[in-house]
Amino acid sequence: MEQLNEYFSLLDQAHVPAIANIRGRVLRSLQNHLLDKGFKQLMPVLMSPITDPLNHAVYPAVIEYEGRSLKLTASMIFHKQLALCANGHEKIFIVAPNIRLEKPEIKHSGNHLLEFSQFDFEIRNATLQDAMATVEDFVKHAIREVRLHCKDELSLLGRTLPDYDASFPVYRSEDLHAEHGDHFEKVMSERMTTPFFVTNYKREFYDRENPSCPGTYHNYDLIYPEGFGEGLSGAERECDYDVIVRRMKEQSMDPAPYANYLAVAKAGLLSRSAGGGLGIERFVKFLSGKRHIRDVSLFDRSVATSFLF
Amino acid sequence: MEQLNEYFSLLDQAHVPAIANIRGRVLRSLQNHLLDKGFKQLMPVLMSPITDPLNHAVYPAVIEYEGRSLKLTASMIFHKQLALCANGHEKIFIVAPNIRLEKPEIKHSGNHLLEFSQFDFEIRNATLQDAMATVEDFVKHAIREVRLHCKDELSLLGRTLPDYDASFPVYRSEDLHAEHGDHFEKVMSERMTTPFFVTNYKREFYDRENPSCPGTYHNYDLIYPEGFGEGLSGAERECDYDVIVRRMKEQSMDPAPYANYLAVAKAGLLSRSAGGGLGIERFVKFLSGKRHIRDVSLFDRSVATSFLF
Repeated sequence: MEQLNEYFSLLDQAHVPAIANIRGRVLRSLQNHLLDKGFKQLMPVLMSPITDPLNHAVYPAVIEYEGRSLKLTASMIFHKQLALCANGHEKIFIVAPNIRLEKPEIKHSGNHLLEFSQFDFEIRNATLQDAMATVEDFVKHAIREVRLHCKDELSLLGRTLPDYDASFPVYRSEDLHAEHGDHFEKVMSERMTTPFFVTNYKREFYDRENPSCPGTYHNYDLIYPEGFGEGLSGAERECDYDVIVRRMKEQSMDPAPYANYLAVAKAGLLSRSAGGGLGIERFVKFLSGKRHIRDVSLFDRSVATSFLF
Repeated sequence: MEQLNEYFSLLDQAHVPAIANIRGRVLRSLQNHLLDKGFKQLMPVLMSPITDPLNHAVYPAVIEYEGRSLKLTASMIFHKQLALCANGHEKIFIVAPNIRLEKPEIKHSGNHLLEFSQFDFEIRNATLQDAMATVEDFVKHAIREVRLHCKDELSLLGRTLPDYDASFPVYRSEDLHAEHGDHFEKVMSERMTTPFFVTNYKREFYDRENPSCPGTYHNYDLIYPEGFGEGLSGAERECDYDVIVRRMKEQSMDPAPYANYLAVAKAGLLSRSAGGGLGIERFVKFLSGKRHIRDVSLFDRSVATSFLF
């Protein structure tokens, strides 16, 4: 009962409704903004023969249905590429829940959840630069909306948000690494006073490699200032069958579960595209000025939580 | 490859973008409407020690994490009751994905999905009548918005939607059963020309029994006309510990997984409340005039599907 009492005293704090209002404002402003720009909104997909293999090891999250093994969605990356094949679906987004059964090693990160939602978008025939411009536009729009409509909430939370008029700066990961070492994201996040982009990370096979400079990648992160850390990852995507197969091999991946996805790629049906996924809880945490991601949800899904409910 | 070709020819049909626009309009109009009325929007919960036991048998959907057994969300009913305990959370909603691993027996229903999303709301200290008035208000609002903003889409789909000016009629299930037998929902759905409510179903333990007339229940369904079938279920909730325990016993339920929920009820922390959950795909199917729920999604999650992606 002691743990329950502690939980309910957390729910009773004055900042709880303020954070909920900021969350609501973020969700509606992102949704309205992209719908107004002609994006099609999809419903989430939670189980599939394939999901994002991710760039770091998590426990498997798999269920069985009628003799089939279905993975729970770690991100909708492949479903976004496939959805772009549909008539009229040149620009899409999803408010997409993701399940990632993180290992307890990262329980002190303050920025990871076992389940969270991404505001996940993808644009046919877009470049890295197009995707980054889209992110900068909707992030700035949401911040303006929160500043305009959540003045009392920000005041109660003791949070001052600038308007971020200037363009978000863009850095290359290799330059930051050379200057600040392995923890360059953390160092830079603490030093900066505006959200900023970092490009060129070596990670999942589906992020497009630069054909004219192999070993470099057309991908990016958005990182929040004031030490709030990573907020979004995105990229141009690989869509060429031969390149996809080569890159899966380089990462020693088993192609078997990807048979249908690879058949679509081989038939030339995947488009060039670029997109990204904004972590909604991380954005709300940044906007609310909270230091632990646990503080922006009613139900604790932080890594290694005891799962009261 | 034949199955893939068939799938991609479905994605290429002219109605695909029209349905997506109707979906987007439904999602934004529901969200904006309830936020404007002061509801707090929560993020979905997908895994928990407990979830809705449901009124019909489905396969279990369970994963393991760090020695804990976590059920995938069949509905957010208990999390809605718990969320109402939070400061300022008198009225809440969630666009909540649900996983229900339906048995293949119902594969011909045309109205069931293995995963779908509910527009799920709950109001502290509300009655059955309050919840039904809320549903009627947001359903009519969304229909007006779709009629106003999706004229071309409705025309392309050959769909005429009336404005449904009059109040939605309300029937009692025992009266309809006496007149039309076991399939009264189907018979009435085909006969009616307006959405209508049916009250008093015997189902899950958490729907409130009428204390002055045991064996009758303060719950309801919303049913669409023209044969489109059930669209929403809702109820007043049981919140009294002794009643909850009795009703779980009556349904031969194992109380063990519910230990924390029952401790909260025993401490008197659960409020009286009422709410409901609108199936988003079913609403889009009704608005689009489609006869199978598979036709309103890009990824087929109908019962016993072969799971291409």
